[in-house]
Amino acid sequence: MTNTTGEIFKVTTFGSSHGKAIGAVIDGCPANLELCEEDIQIELDKRRPGVNELTTNRNESDKVEILSGVFDGKTDGTPITAIVFNKNKSSKDYEYLKNKPRPSHGDFTWISKYGNYDYYGGGRGSGRTTIGNVIGGAIAKKILSNYNIKVFAHVRQVGDIKAKEVDLDLIEEYSKSNNVRCADINAAKLMEKRILSLKENGNSVGGVVEVVTIGIPIGLGEPVFGKLDGEIAKALMNIGSVKGVEIGSGFKIAELTGREANDEFYIEGSNVKTSTNNSGGIIGGMSNGMPVIVRIAIKPTPSIGVLQRTVDLEDMKDVEIDIKGRHDPCICPRVTTVAESSLSMVLLDFMLRGGFIPPNNLNDKNK
Amino acid sequence: MTNTTGEIFKVTTFGSSHGKAIGAVIDGCPANLELCEEDIQIELDKRRPGVNELTTNRNESDKVEILSGVFDGKTDGTPITAIVFNKNKSSKDYEYLKNKPRPSHGDFTWISKYGNYDYYGGGRGSGRTTIGNVIGGAIAKKILSNYNIKVFAHVRQVGDIKAKEVDLDLIEEYSKSNNVRCADINAAKLMEKRILSLKENGNSVGGVVEVVTIGIPIGLGEPVFGKLDGEIAKALMNIGSVKGVEIGSGFKIAELTGREANDEFYIEGSNVKTSTNNSGGIIGGMSNGMPVIVRIAIKPTPSIGVLQRTVDLEDMKDVEIDIKGRHDPCICPRVTTVAESSLSMVLLDFMLRGGFIPPNNLNDKNK
Amino acid sequence: MTNTTGEIFKVTTFGSSHGKAIGAVIDGCPANLELCEEDIQIELDKRRPGVNELTTNRNESDKVEILSGVFDGKTDGTPITAIVFNKNKSSKDYEYLKNKPRPSHGDFTWISKYGNYDYYGGGRGSGRTTIGNVIGGAIAKKILSNYNIKVFAHVRQVGDIKAKEVDLDLIEEYSKSNNVRCADINAAKLMEKRILSLKENGNSVGGVVEVVTIGIPIGLGEPVFGKLDGEIAKALMNIGSVKGVEIGSGFKIAELTGREANDEFYIEGSNVKTSTNNSGGIIGGMSNGMPVIVRIAIKPTPSIGVLQRTVDLEDMKDVEIDIKGRHDPCICPRVTTVAESSLSMVLLDFMLRGGFIPPNNLNDKNK
Amino acid sequence: MTNTTGEIFKVTTFGSSHGKAIGAVIDGCPANLELCEEDIQIELDKRRPGVNELTTNRNESDKVEILSGVFDGKTDGTPITAIVFNKNKSSKDYEYLKNKPRPSHGDFTWISKYGNYDYYGGGRGSGRTTIGNVIGGAIAKKILSNYNIKVFAHVRQVGDIKAKEVDLDLIEEYSKSNNVRCADINAAKLMEKRILSLKENGNSVGGVVEVVTIGIPIGLGEPVFGKLDGEIAKALMNIGSVKGVEIGSGFKIAELTGREANDEFYIEGSNVKTSTNNSGGIIGGMSNGMPVIVRIAIKPTPSIGVLQRTVDLEDMKDVEIDIKGRHDPCICPRVTTVAESSLSMVLLDFMLRGGFIPPNNLNDKNK
Repeated sequence: MTNTTGEIFKVTTFGSSHGKAIGAVIDGCPANLELCEEDIQIELDKRRPGVNELTTNRNESDKVEILSGVFDGKTDGTPITAIVFNKNKSSKDYEYLKNKPRPSHGDFTWISKYGNYDYYGGGRGSGRTTIGNVIGGAIAKKILSNYNIKVFAHVRQVGDIKAKEVDLDLIEEYSKSNNVRCADINAAKLMEKRILSLKENGNSVGGVVEVVTIGIPIGLGEPVFGKLDGEIAKALMNIGSVKGVEIGSGFKIAELTGREANDEFYIEGSNVKTSTNNSGGIIGGMSNGMPVIVRIAIKPTPSIGVLQRTVDLEDMKDVEIDIKGRHDPCICPRVTTVAESSLSMVLLDFMLRGGFIPPNNLNDKNK
Repeated sequence: MTNTTGEIFKVTTFGSSHGKAIGAVIDGCPANLELCEEDIQIELDKRRPGVNELTTNRNESDKVEILSGVFDGKTDGTPITAIVFNKNKSSKDYEYLKNKPRPSHGDFTWISKYGNYDYYGGGRGSGRTTIGNVIGGAIAKKILSNYNIKVFAHVRQVGDIKAKEVDLDLIEEYSKSNNVRCADINAAKLMEKRILSLKENGNSVGGVVEVVTIGIPIGLGEPVFGKLDGEIAKALMNIGSVKGVEIGSGFKIAELTGREANDEFYIEGSNVKTSTNNSGGIIGGMSNGMPVIVRIAIKPTPSIGVLQRTVDLEDMKDVEIDIKGRHDPCICPRVTTVAESSLSMVLLDFMLRGGFIPPNNLNDKNK
Repeated sequence: MTNTTGEIFKVTTFGSSHGKAIGAVIDGCPANLELCEEDIQIELDKRRPGVNELTTNRNESDKVEILSGVFDGKTDGTPITAIVFNKNKSSKDYEYLKNKPRPSHGDFTWISKYGNYDYYGGGRGSGRTTIGNVIGGAIAKKILSNYNIKVFAHVRQVGDIKAKEVDLDLIEEYSKSNNVRCADINAAKLMEKRILSLKENGNSVGGVVEVVTIGIPIGLGEPVFGKLDGEIAKALMNIGSVKGVEIGSGFKIAELTGREANDEFYIEGSNVKTSTNNSGGIIGGMSNGMPVIVRIAIKPTPSIGVLQRTVDLEDMKDVEIDIKGRHDPCICPRVTTVAESSLSMVLLDFMLRGGFIPPNNLNDKNK
Repeated sequence: MTNTTGEIFKVTTFGSSHGKAIGAVIDGCPANLELCEEDIQIELDKRRPGVNELTTNRNESDKVEILSGVFDGKTDGTPITAIVFNKNKSSKDYEYLKNKPRPSHGDFTWISKYGNYDYYGGGRGSGRTTIGNVIGGAIAKKILSNYNIKVFAHVRQVGDIKAKEVDLDLIEEYSKSNNVRCADINAAKLMEKRILSLKENGNSVGGVVEVVTIGIPIGLGEPVFGKLDGEIAKALMNIGSVKGVEIGSGFKIAELTGREANDEFYIEGSNVKTSTNNSGGIIGGMSNGMPVIVRIAIKPTPSIGVLQRTVDLEDMKDVEIDIKGRHDPCICPRVTTVAESSLSMVLLDFMLRGGFIPPNNLNDKNK
């Protein structure tokens, strides 16, 4: 029961897939920041389901409403509460699942731990609860953008189809050009075809999402137990369906020697840079001014249209289930928005902890 | 500046490579636990340097002393402080490094962030500060073992040499048989040869360490921001030199379909198990009772015996450095102990948070 | 910007006097607890304004709505969100106050710190935001009552009128018999008369509220920085208008000698008790099983119907203001409910931290 | 088990009265601050026992040693560890107390909660553990003094002898002139006589200590659950023997009307001030720029030289005890140093949280 994240920019999320509402309370947002519902809506729309054939057909408008924390068009230093009401619920689809945990879904652990489990659409374990992350992330992103920090995620892999390396400057534009959100346009076509073909067969597929961050200052992160890479790993692993996080060269670095892996320094203008970026922008647990590059492994959506073996927890016997409901055949495209949100919250929090952003925008106050 | 980890079992570490002492304060350890210095020493000896030709030849006995928190041979609920004095320092080896950050070491970010930087042996950024983790981990491990929870790490990969899958029950025994701490004995020989050959050339190499946990109960972890996998990812990524963390099938799961990746349930006796373990023992952010399997990518030791390009931060010009000092050619074997420690602290903390261990061992109190 | 309180039973409150809504998110409430809106409403009704001539005539029904965290009539371990919409706002009453801080109100410090200040009705600094405390407190109180712990507050003093000592068992009944909520019925009459007379003159008056707790187990509190008395002092001092907190004999103990002040022990049945209770139920920062007795000093409502000197913060000049709006002439009676709520949250949090209540009511889960 | 205090300036203390050592780890201290052992020693000497006939005759030199966190004479952003070894122990004085809790001491609650209790000199419950507070406070005080913030405590009352109001500017000088640390020199003589007379009779006496803070900026404090007055109340109530905390007019404000109690504003130069200070420098939970005035009620030392009734917890029967050991007849003079320390830590923490002090003294870094 830990639904708050962040040390200074603290985001508490609440709500479940089929409950009345999903939302977030953001405490610690600097005051005097212009903020309106549209700032959040624009990000929610990116993760919204039902927008194309790659996503679930649960059609939710996901309109956000700000209940507190904004006065006269600007934040006022008090907690910002924003909520989205659940509208399009098909709760009857889930009745038969009671006490029969779906394989590789959270049902089993939720029931085991909490007893009273809201099994409709996965309850609080549903991907739908990441609406809370996106609300917090949208605000974080807006503030970061004031400091010229850009956070962008794209799909690097779907199944065994891997995207080619694309220049950092082009990733955003290219990946916006297709529904897969992949910056390698040729790969994107293959990925889309693969996803649709698996969808037809009631199957699903995993992938890899990469998050790129440009413009973060040197020194974010607090060794030894609040390191930037540690907090990033936590934030991204906390996203449902993520099974791995790697930074810079990641697991490939295991194969390298020191001579191959070391990032040598050089001076460029008044800045210190590294000629390679195997470190992915983080050394010693702190940002070194180079782009921060993070990749996450996403598992295939566990809801598939095939008979699966499970157990009846009431009768304690083996049974089979045939999962109904509406699901994404590949969740990677929509995870991009959630990953950007989660990473943005981490970065903003460290900006505030490190004094890179004045609390309450004291400077702005006098304008 | 975040040197405390854990919510209930809180471990604060302090000290630097060449300072007076390194140590840890453990607050929140249940009372009435038998504890002596030897319980900690046994783990410190596993990470101790200078014990064989695979490690640095800095020879430190690393004798631990308990200063508080133990009364009459048992913990008493007050903070446990344990320290190790630094003895074998070669501080003169580091004088020349002042203002010249070593590539892929933390020097650059530490100097940039904090200004006043203890550059001797990497200061607080040194791997030597993981002595604090091992102190905390040794106590955690001892308590976990009372609950039949076993945490064991071994080397899965060195450079491109990968160990074969070894039966869970045999990993500990086999990996103890060689200095590489690899459970695949044939691979271990190749790894040792590779490390020694690179060492001769002043080079180093990365690898992969796997941590296996057996016996943890169902339900550890607190969604949505305190998930078990999130906290594990953070704890392990916080270990210096780690660039990736994966759980269960990890990055390989990206290539799978839902049919391949899903872990189906079945009843065995009075337990619910899964027939495969692609989830690595964690679903929905909580343990499901299956073994927890985590792998981390370790970068090659960045201290190598070759001229490297860096910058002089005082004169702001490009320079070259030739790193002296004493270093491990492959840090993986010693990382196993640190990884076990860090994971043990996370697990114990969740056991206490979840009420699996009564605070203050109330049960034991009446014995 | 710290709007969360508690370590395990974490309550985050939000909202301002004239904003859309006021509410709370409760994270860490054990699962499987029966909970409905009426459980919260009953407490909100006690602090509701406009109910008699001793209170402000702002008439708010303060109907609560639960948005999340309750499934099938019981808590499910996920965050509970409950809100109250603001209905009866007279915002125009406050327009003239912009940049003119009311004496002894928070206006001045809020403007100074946050710049953008919601001056309508005191914004987030309004006593109305204690609706959040009462929501959290209502849930805490319900759980505590399952453990036979009773928390009750009454008015001990209004101006210089002091209530007589009343037997612990009778306080609740007697104090419910009058609008002042004073257990000494004669004093209550005098207090009521005093308050109404001051109200007529546009004046207000302070007082003392006492909170009594019966039935708490031995050992709540965590020395040396999380003591029970420390957390109680914080929780109660955090209530607006409180200027002092004392426990047991409080400030009177300063006048006593050790012989007079010491609480001697004796055996009663299988329990250890003290023959006096100068300690107010807490020694060494932990509960000792005796009733916990806490008193708080409440300042007179600072909104009074008389010209007062203040400053114009825009023009930086001395000015006078005549405060309009609707206010309680003595806030003590309504503070009783808030004080009970705040104390209940502290006690429940320690019950959970100390393992006195099983997380997720594991015991109940199997019923 | 909460031995850490502070959000950014985090102080963890450890150690017991008769254990090996007592100390503190300070995490979050800005880097680049000049710091040496003498800076801490000067404060420890103020609380040191055995210095005059008003204090216990346990003679401890209390020499502090810094183990980490200072490099080249300045803090370096890593945790500062400082310890004091216990030297002059008379542990045999306490053997007879095992299982016989001393009235109004923490023995009973410590035994009840933790089982294994270090009963020598009160173990961790001893006033001696406030050495940790003083270590943290000495560092906090030094930093605050760089910002012209002064924290000073003096004795206002001993038994029923009350000191006259003394001008803020003279308090420090006058109270340093006598062993009671009372700024009213005539009262100090009476107090000293009273204390010595009670000491002769094996008795003790309580009192009131006032802490005055000058120079703190407007806006320290974070409503609604991290208010300045809330944190002060907690920090001071956490000091052993404190039974009440009041701010500004404190409990006296209960007797006042709004007209009497309100602090009206006026302009002085470019500052906003209040013509009275019933608020004690805090309104709305934030500092308003006026002096912060706090008073605490101190109970009489519970160790007295007279037969007292208690219980034998092993045999569960009523017994009598005659307390030996060495004790202060009135702890107020020595509490002044501890109160200054605790308050300084709170103030520094809020200075850092509010951005009033740049993290890592970034400004100084470039000097």
